[in-house]
Amino acid sequence: MDRRVFNSSVLAGSLAGLLLPGAQAEQAPRSLGKPVIGLLVYPGMILLDLTGPLTVFNIMQADVRLIAASMTPVATDVGIAVAPTHSFDAAPAELDVLFVPGGLKGTVDGMNDARTLDFVASRGELARFVTSVCTGSLLLGAAGLLKGFNATSHWYVRDLLPLMGAKMVADRVVTDRNRVTAGGVTAGIDFGLALAAKLTGEDNAKRIQLLIEYDPQPPFAAGSPERAGADSANAVLTQRGPLIRQAEQAARAAGQRLGVP
Amino acid sequence: MDRRVFNSSVLAGSLAGLLLPGAQAEQAPRSLGKPVIGLLVYPGMILLDLTGPLTVFNIMQADVRLIAASMTPVATDVGIAVAPTHSFDAAPAELDVLFVPGGLKGTVDGMNDARTLDFVASRGELARFVTSVCTGSLLLGAAGLLKGFNATSHWYVRDLLPLMGAKMVADRVVTDRNRVTAGGVTAGIDFGLALAAKLTGEDNAKRIQLLIEYDPQPPFAAGSPERAGADSANAVLTQRGPLIRQAEQAARAAGQRLGVP
Repeated sequence: MDRRVFNSSVLAGSLAGLLLPGAQAEQAPRSLGKPVIGLLVYPGMILLDLTGPLTVFNIMQADVRLIAASMTPVATDVGIAVAPTHSFDAAPAELDVLFVPGGLKGTVDGMNDARTLDFVASRGELARFVTSVCTGSLLLGAAGLLKGFNATSHWYVRDLLPLMGAKMVADRVVTDRNRVTAGGVTAGIDFGLALAAKLTGEDNAKRIQLLIEYDPQPPFAAGSPERAGADSANAVLTQRGPLIRQAEQAARAAGQRLGVP
Repeated sequence: MDRRVFNSSVLAGSLAGLLLPGAQAEQAPRSLGKPVIGLLVYPGMILLDLTGPLTVFNIMQADVRLIAASMTPVATDVGIAVAPTHSFDAAPAELDVLFVPGGLKGTVDGMNDARTLDFVASRGELARFVTSVCTGSLLLGAAGLLKGFNATSHWYVRDLLPLMGAKMVADRVVTDRNRVTAGGVTAGIDFGLALAAKLTGEDNAKRIQLLIEYDPQPPFAAGSPERAGADSANAVLTQRGPLIRQAEQAARAAGQRLGVP
């Protein structure tokens, strides 16, 4: 990894400690060379959004924190609950990576929750990398972290990003300065490997890719609206319509707060 | 789905109930059209092996059971514990799908554990589909379920399959009659979609693929030993050497029990 970037980040962390003397957040120095990655976990999140990147971060031997509003285990889409390791109050003030997974219903709840937005904004301002998979970027956007940045999201809500001042780019993983956002659900694996390369070098990312045998061979060519065709995409948009409209309302409200014209 | 196959499976389930009058296993009739999928969970498993297929099964609205030796939550590779929904004793006698994830250390423990092997063998004998991702196929093999079948596994242990009477095929997803085995970790997504097509039709599998935006674009061409090159593959084999040798011992012992020449 780039030691200069990392060391300046450590310095920024120390400064953050000086500037926030009253904060309850963890201020202990981080292990050099072991990136601290804070993954937001919240009710209704899609477990695969989290598990893809987390598997990569784990093999990378990152210092991983699962952060939630409280320490209560959060329910995920597949019925497996995830126990947080840190509450908002106990989470490190400065992270190498802030990561937000998706899960549309839970994302919308977060976009409408001041405490969640405050947490995401505060950690995002100091993090070396501000990242998301799937609808997680809507939460970053609502927290004001994507204003003026290129970004993407799950294909069925990515058009909402400009409402919060982002420029939407329809790619699988979109990097703009220190913002790295990815498409829906399974894009988390591509994202995780791309971020691993930034944090620990390309050779290590390739080693991880080989360990998780990421040589995908989808059985069908149906994984994007372009490949699946308009009829299939429209069927999904109709089915998800009510939730997408809730997300649009939340995005418009966030845009107003953020002064997006 | 093929109603004839499904109905004969329901009949087999009823027969199993008659033949095992003393069993504690659940014998309630299953909802027609909702496949019952039993996913083995065990300590040391790789959460992504489970989460990929489980996400597909969940969108498919399958009747999913997370089955473990006991109801104690099991630790996974990434530090998230999975709470079983059923113990071995309470698991349905007859499943539409038996699924076994991987995680080499945990797989080897299972290959050496008579109770785990008995459970996998008993459910595998009656299941419509006997399936695995990653090193999970070693557990199927040790339970005698792959003798005379084509099968695959994580690339770094797939050569052990013939020790238990299987014919190794180096493909991402290998189907032979009702056995469907897949390669390492991330192959679970390809597998899940392939199985969804068998259970609920190709159109539905494509719809799920679009929902989870499975249009993979790996950042590097390094996800198989062939793509990564011999040096990278050998480095992994050296690093995983002690565990692979334990797996080989367990596979040889299983082969002897199974009378594999």
